Amino acid sequence: MNIEKTPILTKGKAFEIAEKFGTPCYVYSQEALVQQAKKALEFPNAFGITVRYAMKAASNKNILALFDRLGLHIDASSAFEVKRAIMAGIDPTHISLSSQQLPDNLEEIIKSGVKYNACSLRQLEAFGRLFPNSEVGVRINPGLGSGGTNRTNVGGPASSFGIWFEYIPQIKQTAQKYGLKIIRIHTHIGSGSDPLVWQKVAKMSLDTVAQFEDVRILNMGGGYKVARMSDEKSTDLQKIGAPVADLIADFAKKTGRKLAFEIEPGTFLVANCAAVLARVQDVCDTGDGGYEFVKLDTGMTEILRPSIYGAQHPISIIQKTPCDEVKSYIVSGHCCESGDILTPAPSDPEGLSPRPMAKATIGDLCVIGGAGAYCSSMSTVNYNSYPAAPEVMLMPDGSTALMRRRQTLEQIVQNETDI
Amino acid sequence: MNIEKTPILTKGKAFEIAEKFGTPCYVYSQEALVQQAKKALEFPNAFGITVRYAMKAASNKNILALFDRLGLHIDASSAFEVKRAIMAGIDPTHISLSSQQLPDNLEEIIKSGVKYNACSLRQLEAFGRLFPNSEVGVRINPGLGSGGTNRTNVGGPASSFGIWFEYIPQIKQTAQKYGLKIIRIHTHIGSGSDPLVWQKVAKMSLDTVAQFEDVRILNMGGGYKVARMSDEKSTDLQKIGAPVADLIADFAKKTGRKLAFEIEPGTFLVANCAAVLARVQDVCDTGDGGYEFVKLDTGMTEILRPSIYGAQHPISIIQKTPCDEVKSYIVSGHCCESGDILTPAPSDPEGLSPRPMAKATIGDLCVIGGAGAYCSSMSTVNYNSYPAAPEVMLMPDGSTALMRRRQTLEQIVQNETDI
Repeated sequence: MNIEKTPILTKGKAFEIAEKFGTPCYVYSQEALVQQAKKALEFPNAFGITVRYAMKAASNKNILALFDRLGLHIDASSAFEVKRAIMAGIDPTHISLSSQQLPDNLEEIIKSGVKYNACSLRQLEAFGRLFPNSEVGVRINPGLGSGGTNRTNVGGPASSFGIWFEYIPQIKQTAQKYGLKIIRIHTHIGSGSDPLVWQKVAKMSLDTVAQFEDVRILNMGGGYKVARMSDEKSTDLQKIGAPVADLIADFAKKTGRKLAFEIEPGTFLVANCAAVLARVQDVCDTGDGGYEFVKLDTGMTEILRPSIYGAQHPISIIQKTPCDEVKSYIVSGHCCESGDILTPAPSDPEGLSPRPMAKATIGDLCVIGGAGAYCSSMSTVNYNSYPAAPEVMLMPDGSTALMRRRQTLEQIVQNETDI
Repeated sequence: MNIEKTPILTKGKAFEIAEKFGTPCYVYSQEALVQQAKKALEFPNAFGITVRYAMKAASNKNILALFDRLGLHIDASSAFEVKRAIMAGIDPTHISLSSQQLPDNLEEIIKSGVKYNACSLRQLEAFGRLFPNSEVGVRINPGLGSGGTNRTNVGGPASSFGIWFEYIPQIKQTAQKYGLKIIRIHTHIGSGSDPLVWQKVAKMSLDTVAQFEDVRILNMGGGYKVARMSDEKSTDLQKIGAPVADLIADFAKKTGRKLAFEIEPGTFLVANCAAVLARVQDVCDTGDGGYEFVKLDTGMTEILRPSIYGAQHPISIIQKTPCDEVKSYIVSGHCCESGDILTPAPSDPEGLSPRPMAKATIGDLCVIGGAGAYCSSMSTVNYNSYPAAPEVMLMPDGSTALMRRRQTLEQIVQNETDI
């Protein structure tokens, strides 16, 4: 196995940031974010494309605002995300909400201009009662996942996302009851990079669109895998997008209906645009036949993906004093939790997989790459009472800007009350 | 499979709390907490016992204060936990720190009276430099885990916790260098309920103690499994403790050294003393051959254990309108995340395991039991921008007291700054 590289940070910049903001710390590269956004905006399309950033991937307002300036719209997964995006300055008409949970304040959200995809019959019913004779989208589970396990599928019979495709008659019945026009079909089926799967789902999606005469927008969601590790492969948007665009063009020829197209990338836009900068806390071993461990001042509190999914992130040691020696380490987090491991076996959070890297010494820095998506937003923050790490933006001119301060312990307990 | 019961909450109380505090909401039973504390304090011992609450399991100050009043001490896993316990009114001399991470403020912590177990040679060295000629504890990895996978072991060659037992000469060397007296040996090896394993580890621990003439305290940590589900078995502290007490008595006969004994339960003290109260948001299905789903307004944001470890929690539907029908459901969380599932296959977060329960209707309540340990403290709080749920204490007289307010969205973003 190669020694993995973490391209966001040079050695000098890493030590500068550690000095200025302390460790652990998230570091995002604005240049990389812009680059990914541009790639996404070039997604092949027949009659126009809207790229919505799945903001659950990393929700800092500065990331939302940056993507907004570049022309991306927002995919929100909860009413709270809608409010957060609006607070970040996003025009409500640029926000689309597709949520597992029916918002308590759906009326207010819709009135502000947010677009809504009903993700269940119950949600469609609730929308109809509030806004009869209006336009709405529906999310449909097309009955197909993108491979992997039951759990990683967000389509197919094991997925609760969207309305099961066999219930299209019920969708129509509810729409008729309230005079709703279904103008948007949403068919996100999850993580995948296989052009053939995308084509298959695109065909199924268009078959669905054909059943709704008012639909003018097809949203196929996100799930574009990126290579965090050197042996992984990133999704080529041109490759998966071109045949889909052709299918939409064909659909127009046959039906006269020119569908606008939407995608909702999260991982693709941010995953490789950030790293967690940490410090080597300790180096120890369990004797002959045991392992060598590098212990960091970060872990599942900042990056949960390895512990929960066996996800692989590139990890580099940045030595204070350079030496050429390479060693094989298990990298442990700082929590008193056996599962707080940053080098699980691939896709097996129960297994341990020592990783070759530059020899680590206490006080060295450690950069964990691929930490832009589902890290600052989806971790066991505050476990062992560790405060949430700061978020720093590395600007194109090489300067750094703090976009989230380190949390304090006082903030962690601010809602506790004496009984 | 039986329909699981969640004993903390009656139907009336569940609706009352949902009305008063909203859902989702953690509900702790003070009576149950007191009962478990009393059981722990009765742990068999030869020459005295100190029960330290592993506060990482659930860190609300009211839980810490309750256990403190009952005579329990504190096991802290980070310098932040130490500070949090002191802020909750705990006497620093009742706090013991065993951490993967060397505190930046070790000097201040030790000076306040906190007891310290050096968990690595590096930590022992740092302590020695700061406090030469003083007393200290060391955590040792005795080379044995308590079964399960590599990962769930916190002892044995695959664990980075504590100093590998073969490095006792190095411990002595460091101790001698700084004139340190090793007075406490800590040998936590993780989750287990088998009396034979405890006996074996006790023997190994005493062999270690025999090598340190100044040791007067043996701390064997925690890891006492409890039955959350009806087919699981709780650890009988009397059964695992009695042979250990006998071994300590034997050790005294042979050596004249009467060891004080310490345990550090977390799960045992709180796991079954709390539930998450949630509301049924949606009920849907994926057709013939598919699944029926109950969607809640909670999920991995409040209970991560099923998603990360395939942990089983009892789940009850509390119907608004009672009916006898039983159905088999996959219970989904509210996050836009395929892994947000509350009914994984046992020990397999990738598998789905439908569970029989009372028929669910939108608006019914749902109680997820066994949610006292590693739930409010170890979850993907704020994922999808959902605010942290409130914590409520159910008092012995049936009244309820809010001990943590629901977080606001404004608090979630309070540390974000414009760049």
